[in-house]
Formats: sequence, structure tokens, C-alpha cells
Amino acid sequence: MSDMPKTVRINEEGPREGFQIEKSPIATARKIELIDALSRTGLQQIQVGSYVNPKAVPGMADIDDIVAGFERVSGVRYTALWLNDKGLQRAIASGRLDIRGSISLTASEKFLLRNQNRTLAENLDAQHGTIAMYKQHGIAVDRAGIMAAFGCNFEGDIAVARILDLLAQLMDLAAQHELKIKTLSLADTMAWATPLSIRRVVGAVRERYPELELSLHLHDTRGMGIANAYAGLEMGVAIFDAAVAGLGGCPFAGHSGAAGNVCTEDLVLMCEEMGIDTGVDLDALIGCARLAEDIFGKALPGSVMKGGSLKGLRHKIAAAA
Amino acid sequence: MSDMPKTVRINEEGPREGFQIEKSPIATARKIELIDALSRTGLQQIQVGSYVNPKAVPGMADIDDIVAGFERVSGVRYTALWLNDKGLQRAIASGRLDIRGSISLTASEKFLLRNQNRTLAENLDAQHGTIAMYKQHGIAVDRAGIMAAFGCNFEGDIAVARILDLLAQLMDLAAQHELKIKTLSLADTMAWATPLSIRRVVGAVRERYPELELSLHLHDTRGMGIANAYAGLEMGVAIFDAAVAGLGGCPFAGHSGAAGNVCTEDLVLMCEEMGIDTGVDLDALIGCARLAEDIFGKALPGSVMKGGSLKGLRHKIAAAA
Repeated sequence: MSDMPKTVRINEEGPREGFQIEKSPIATARKIELIDALSRTGLQQIQVGSYVNPKAVPGMADIDDIVAGFERVSGVRYTALWLNDKGLQRAIASGRLDIRGSISLTASEKFLLRNQNRTLAENLDAQHGTIAMYKQHGIAVDRAGIMAAFGCNFEGDIAVARILDLLAQLMDLAAQHELKIKTLSLADTMAWATPLSIRRVVGAVRERYPELELSLHLHDTRGMGIANAYAGLEMGVAIFDAAVAGLGGCPFAGHSGAAGNVCTEDLVLMCEEMGIDTGVDLDALIGCARLAEDIFGKALPGSVMKGGSLKGLRHKIAAAA
Repeated sequence: MSDMPKTVRINEEGPREGFQIEKSPIATARKIELIDALSRTGLQQIQVGSYVNPKAVPGMADIDDIVAGFERVSGVRYTALWLNDKGLQRAIASGRLDIRGSISLTASEKFLLRNQNRTLAENLDAQHGTIAMYKQHGIAVDRAGIMAAFGCNFEGDIAVARILDLLAQLMDLAAQHELKIKTLSLADTMAWATPLSIRRVVGAVRERYPELELSLHLHDTRGMGIANAYAGLEMGVAIFDAAVAGLGGCPFAGHSGAAGNVCTEDLVLMCEEMGIDTGVDLDALIGCARLAEDIFGKALPGSVMKGGSLKGLRHKIAAAA
């Protein structure tokens, strides 16, 4: 328990995760309404959307309007996703986003071949181009990620040794470009992780690169999201991606049962009740989760928005006494 | 991690938890169908229902027919709940149940006053009557439980010291009657537990009573069920109550968002993937969860029945290779 952090930072990805996968159209104003509500919860980072092909991802066709429309709140970092230079240029041109560079590898070659038509080696090689793209725009690259780090629907289990190999290659690549990677995101893209594999992978990475700040991106497809986050906390992980109300899913996972990210308000409740500061007002966040249900017009998977916060119950009990 | 058990026993409570709280009527034959399907999964214990007032719990009005109708499978222990001598007599008269005696305390006086109109002291005192009832029928009492052991919607947080006090009283009481308590169930009746409080309470109990076999009864109202089970595993707990598909809820919790027990198939997946044997065939259990959705006529909260097992994916990957 000694590695448990005192403070955790949550990167809210609900808007991007939720809007990109939703099939029914949602009005831009309502997307902005959710982002603006999230901005007032104490969250320090919100991913508002992605610059992608509107034909492939119709829910992100209005990304320019979303980015132009939300209200920037001081102290909140607003991010977006892009997959190429054109997307990055649009993000920069908005003048309203916090642009940071990152390089990313995928641990499963079968996943890469299927979704990007690249081998592991080709994908590594492509990162030179990504770094060059950021350099051209004067954007620092100090973050890296490994996708499918805990297993893959097309390749199966991923050995810890594979992760360490990829990481060594990433670090070499960064060194070649005189970059210093400070933060590494390990993504359980297809929800293969269990608390045990979280401990194994995080433990091995920390052992080899003790100076790296680690971040976890967890999906809840098999109900392991919060347990995996807890195992991450036990191993000292202090940054988590999460999605309000448990929004989202993985369009590339190859099956319809793929659930969203670990639910932000459930994660905040766990942290808060264990004495870990997230800086987030849980009741305000529960309000956002209910707003998300209203905007998406359906029940969403989060639990705490239905079960209520314990702080709320404590207040009720104190008031009745 | 060294305390992690190699084998876990799961007490399936889905039929009792699910049927007792469901408002729409379910045909007895379909209730029996679920129990019979669960009997063929490798589960070692199934709680089939409760002997309670049919006016208060209409879903259990057909308990005699349920108990008469299911098929006993060798190696499975079939249990039921009763609240008084009349219920116990009916359970015995059925000749088809595995009757075991237990005594139970509740850690929250406000919960007791509200639901049973008893103080903590009165509730302790009432256990003499419970023991006498079992003695009269020649039934051994070697199990004890503490309800609301992690917090209460009406009283708030429960101190670890309270649990240890109650446990000392339980042990004194057992000694007075020359009973030896072998198994203690700690119930998170209103879903206040987090992995941290699981560690604290289980740790304190194990420290004081190292010879006790511990069991956890967890609810998933705030999404902490699987994480709490994991924390229990880390502390060496090897018996868990769970409900297929996440069936159930707590009729006494005082709010509508109260969710069922931790989901059996999600728990089995976590154990299986971490190398802990449950004896359960996960694919057969997923079949039961889908059957439960059909019987209850609605989506149920379990995740693995939607996301699928990893073993299933591994087979698919191996077959495609």
C-alpha cells in the first residue's frame, strides 16, 4: 500500500470517447454543454474531441464548431486527438486547445495490420514522421503511449517482455531525436487487463524506467475497470484516463460488447473514499453524468450516478441527527 | 500479493437476490430453469430462495414449489434464507436443502432500529434465541456474519473498532453455547466499502482471529464490487457471495439505486485470469447470465456476458491461426 499516490490526475475523455462512437446525431450545442459542465467540476484535463474523417466518424464532423464553442476555464487543459498533420494543423489553427506532442506504439502486430496495415517495425519507423511533424510546428514531444499493452482481441495475450522491448525502442527513438519522454501511457485498448496483469506490466516498466510518470487508459468491457485502476494506484500510478458516466467504446475492438473507459465518477469516489485527492467535486461530476444520460438519451453504465456519493449520504445523516 | 488464495469458493446468490427484489412476476418454472442451469456450471453452492412473508416479498411466495422443483446435482450445496423458526421448519421439511446454522449481528444500530426495531444489545441478545432454535432441530452453528460491516446509509461510517467489539461479543456468545465459529461473513450490505476499507476491516479481523475463514458479501451500488473482491483476495479471502448477471439489490437500503451483489461471471473471469481456481465453467455461467436476462426480461448489469470471456477470444484466435 506504500506506493499509493496522495493525488491523482484524471484526464476526462468522455466527450471524445462518447461522441465519436454514438450513432444517433447529437446537436453541437449539447456537446458543448457537456464540455462546459465538465469544466466546472475541478477536472484538470478534458479531451473535447478528435480531428478525424467525418465520413468514418460522423459524430466528430462538427469538431471545429465544438472547439470554437466551448468556454475555456482557467486551470483546465483542453486536448483533442488527431491522426495526421492535417488534423494537427486544424487543432493548432483553432487557437483554443492545449497542443502536446506524443508518440505511440501498439503492442499487437495483428491489431496494427488490421487497423493501420503496418507491422510493428513499420509502426516504429512511422514515429520518425510523427516527431518530424511536431518539430515542424515547434511542439515538444514528451509523452509516449503503448496501445493494447495488456492483450489484444486479434493476437491474444501480450508478454511483458514485448512491452519492455517496445519501450526500449521508443526510448531509443526519442534519444535519436533528442527528446526526453516524461510520461508513458499504457492503454488496455481491448479490455484484457486484470489487476494481476496491471501489477505485472506496471511493475516491470517502473523497475526498468523508475523516472517515467505512468498513466493508465482502461476500458470496462469485462467489468475490471475500477479494480484495474485500484491495482494501478497500488503500484503508484497517479494519472488515469476516464470517461464521465462510462461513456465510449472502442470502434476497432471488433465486437459490439466493447464498453467505454473506466467511469470518471466511480473512479473519483474510490479515490476520495481512500483519501486520494483528485481535485474533483464529485457531486458536480455526478450532475455531468446525469446530463450525459440526458444528452445521449439513454442509460449509461456509470454506477455512482445511480447509487449516489457517500459524502452526500454522510451530509444527509448529519442533517437528520 | 502473497496472501492471494489459489482457490476461491463462490456462493451463488442470484436466484434469491434476484427473485426477491423483482417486481414483475416470474413463472416458477423459469426460476427453476435458472437454478438448474446454475447447477451445471461447477458452482459449489447456490442459494435458491428465502422463506419469508409472501405479502412483503411476493417474488418468494412460491418458495416451496421452487425448492420442490429444482434438480439436485451432486457436489452442489443448495441453501435458502429464513428469518424465524417457521421459515427454518419449512426449509427442513422440504428435505431438499443443505441446512446450516448461523448467527448474525448488524454493525449499525440505526439500521437495526429501522428494520428490526432492535438496539445493538437487543440484537446480540436475540442470538441466544437463534442458537436455541438451531439446537432444537439438531443443527450445528459454525458460521457467523456481520451485516453493514463497512458503513450504513442511516448511520454512516462504521469504525473498525465496532466490528472487533461485535466480533468479540459474537465469540463470547458462541463460547457460552459451546459453539465453535469457523466461518465469518462480512457483508457490505449498503455498498459503503472501498478496497481500502476492505483491507482495513479484513486485516483487523484476521489479525485478531487468524483461524477464522472469512467470506465477503459485496454489493455493486457504487461500482466498487470487483475492486473490493480483488482487495479481499489480496488479503487472503477465499469465499465470496456473488450473483449471476449482477442480479439483486437491497430492499432495506432505503434508496432505489441500490444494485445487486457483485456479478458472479465478472468475479470468475477475474479469478480465472489471475490463476485462481473457482471450479466454475465461465462459458456455462455466461449462458446462465444470458438466460437470467431472458427470464427477467431486461438488461442486467453484468459486464462479461456482454464483453465475452478472454478464454473464448483465445480459442477464436487459435482457431484462426
